[in-house]
Amino acid sequence: MEIDPSDHTGRQNYQLLSGMVVPRPIAFVTSLSADGLLNAAPFAYFNAIANNPPLVMFSPTYQGAERPSYSGEKVKKDTLRNIEETGEFVINIATEDIAEAINICAGTYGPEINELEEAGLTTLPSRVVKPPRVAESPGALECRLERFIELGSHNLVIGQVVMFHLREDLFVDGTVDVNRLRPIARLSKNNYTRCGDIFEMLRPK
Amino acid sequence: MEIDPSDHTGRQNYQLLSGMVVPRPIAFVTSLSADGLLNAAPFAYFNAIANNPPLVMFSPTYQGAERPSYSGEKVKKDTLRNIEETGEFVINIATEDIAEAINICAGTYGPEINELEEAGLTTLPSRVVKPPRVAESPGALECRLERFIELGSHNLVIGQVVMFHLREDLFVDGTVDVNRLRPIARLSKNNYTRCGDIFEMLRPK
Repeated sequence: MEIDPSDHTGRQNYQLLSGMVVPRPIAFVTSLSADGLLNAAPFAYFNAIANNPPLVMFSPTYQGAERPSYSGEKVKKDTLRNIEETGEFVINIATEDIAEAINICAGTYGPEINELEEAGLTTLPSRVVKPPRVAESPGALECRLERFIELGSHNLVIGQVVMFHLREDLFVDGTVDVNRLRPIARLSKNNYTRCGDIFEMLRPK
Repeated sequence: MEIDPSDHTGRQNYQLLSGMVVPRPIAFVTSLSADGLLNAAPFAYFNAIANNPPLVMFSPTYQGAERPSYSGEKVKKDTLRNIEETGEFVINIATEDIAEAINICAGTYGPEINELEEAGLTTLPSRVVKPPRVAESPGALECRLERFIELGSHNLVIGQVVMFHLREDLFVDGTVDVNRLRPIARLSKNNYTRCGDIFEMLRPK
């Protein structure tokens, strides 16, 4: 079947995109407002985009745009507004152990609400940036804003990693042991996945 | 442990980034040169980034940069050069059934080599863009270049989806049945994963 996206609403396109581009890694982002209010929220339009310098991107939509009742109003989410104000954020790795807590942080709360408290999570200070990292996440990327790009329904945020944090026992053979990390990833609708069977394919000469 | 990326080479940062930002979806990209030579190659710095209009990004590095012997020379990969020349490409969904074939296309070949032939894959015409899609892939996104962004070791390619293709039996309840799609995803080093246990978490009110 062929589906012309110009015949469809953003919401229908979302079901197709989010069902075909899978599994998506999850950035669990902590940020601070200029006034020092902490925010935490997950985003699955997320990936690394360069190694040198190490860059990552995530792409938040506007407040309430996940809901069928969305009015189309472009109210920025707290995460985006905080990064505009301070230029800093932390991407905490989303793992099985904190899946339910991360989902609690996916709700819509006023900027005065500390989502991490709502979810029973705690923080540790970052090394380079002001926003703290999530203590219960075994890995984190401290980031400085590299640039924003406004893209219709979303705002692409590009960040440069200025510090990696990784729980010592996860660092094996110069990389991360995914079986110990146990990341979760996003599928379409309300679905998530764990990593399944891992297999190796050697790149051809 | 804390690792300062400025103390490390791009290669070491790659091991950390590609080990922590997991699992990554894979874009199996087909493109044509201005002369009509077909190219196919997989990229795992890939995700959706907006719903309306539907936008995707992938971020290729330079030729040979995956190899420890990389000289640092910025020779563009065929995929990137083709998209510069024509402004069009197709993202084919990477699935278990064609995993080995996709890996063959990850090798370094001259522009005169048709990777799909090397891998035993065939094509079907696209509807809107000139590059064909991969017949053996159950889903494809026809894309027009929205913009390039040069980012040090990589070039971010943003594309607008102008046509979705999906095998009829995969479209269930308005989205894609991931158990039938059977996508593969990228981990660090030579590792790939299948989707594992799928679980549901309802977004809080």
